[in-house]
Amino acid sequence: MEFSSKLIEKAVNEISQLPGIGKRSALRLALHLLKQPKEQTRFLAEALLSMRADIKYCDNCHNISDSTTCEICANTNRNHQIVCVVEDIRDVMAIENTGQFRGVYHVLGGKISPIDGVGPSQLKISTLVEKVKTGTVSEVIFALSSTMEGDTTNFYIFKQIADCDIVVSTIARGIAVGDELEYADEVTLGRSILHRVPFDKAFKNN
Amino acid sequence: MEFSSKLIEKAVNEISQLPGIGKRSALRLALHLLKQPKEQTRFLAEALLSMRADIKYCDNCHNISDSTTCEICANTNRNHQIVCVVEDIRDVMAIENTGQFRGVYHVLGGKISPIDGVGPSQLKISTLVEKVKTGTVSEVIFALSSTMEGDTTNFYIFKQIADCDIVVSTIARGIAVGDELEYADEVTLGRSILHRVPFDKAFKNN
Ligand SMILES: [Zn+2]
Ligand SMILES: [Zn+2]
Repeated sequence: MEFSSKLIEKAVNEISQLPGIGKRSALRLALHLLKQPKEQTRFLAEALLSMRADIKYCDNCHNISDSTTCEICANTNRNHQIVCVVEDIRDVMAIENTGQFRGVYHVLGGKISPIDGVGPSQLKISTLVEKVKTGTVSEVIFALSSTMEGDTTNFYIFKQIADCDIVVSTIARGIAVGDELEYADEVTLGRSILHRVPFDKAFKNN
Repeated sequence: MEFSSKLIEKAVNEISQLPGIGKRSALRLALHLLKQPKEQTRFLAEALLSMRADIKYCDNCHNISDSTTCEICANTNRNHQIVCVVEDIRDVMAIENTGQFRGVYHVLGGKISPIDGVGPSQLKISTLVEKVKTGTVSEVIFALSSTMEGDTTNFYIFKQIADCDIVVSTIARGIAVGDELEYADEVTLGRSILHRVPFDKAFKNN
């Protein structure tokens, strides 16, 4: 792309560093900002800068937070003995959104993925193991995505806490509520039969 | 969406103001920036701010530029009597990319679109008409997109320059080079027959 302005070229180059945004989309976004009041660009830039500079992570669960203890960890009405292990803040938001979980979280910050250069040491695994070993935890629930990386990470952690006297569970995989059986993939369908639950417990909250 | 941090919520809200970016994508982009070195966010924010604050528009053709006369208008090797009328910088880039045009441009900044609240006064139409009336232009080429808004804009301008002694043309519509006839829509195919060109002129540069 040949630009008639270095300023727009630089903006397009920076925008297109973002995942999933090519040069064409970046140019479209830059032209949009040029048509909007200057404040919009200022607000956007300031929001990005202060997020990147001032964001904190909860000392306890490592979730993104504005303080060193997140609201969930600070909430004494929640069950701090039940720890749900997730990949990132999006999973916390998704589970919180269900209203079905009253325990706390442990945010790993990713999954073990040798291809992407992510090893166990880059994840918040040791603090989870420590937490379990100190004996304040009664159950660990794995809620990582159902991929090879997710399974590897679950297993890596499981090995280190297997001899502790706690319940280790994983979220149920199965047919999505409202989905037709005939359209489900066979692995999911197989697991949902294998992990069938007593009918009277199927609608029980945890 | 319930966020565990006001900082990330604010960033997500600002990012999702951009066209085509929903809250989920905005969160994905914000998390990406949090994982990258702080410099990346700073470079992005600075590039956006300086683009928005310092960008200029060519006094002559209104294209985005770093100076008050763009490189194309400043180029004495180009034919300043032939003016190609386009919507925005993307069209200038696309036509420049072909290497087939040695005239200059006039960038309207949009198309007349009552639905979007864009009337003739918001576009750079009067400066084009002025340019034509001062007699320094021999040909105006309309290169707006082939939509109702494009046609309306063409016609609006045409009415004001129709009595000037210049050539007014529009870029050819037809089957894309390399495309199969059978897959072309009938309007395009019809126009390409109606506007057929002498075979020996079909490969001539302007
Ligand atoms: Zn926390
Ligand atoms: Zn110019």
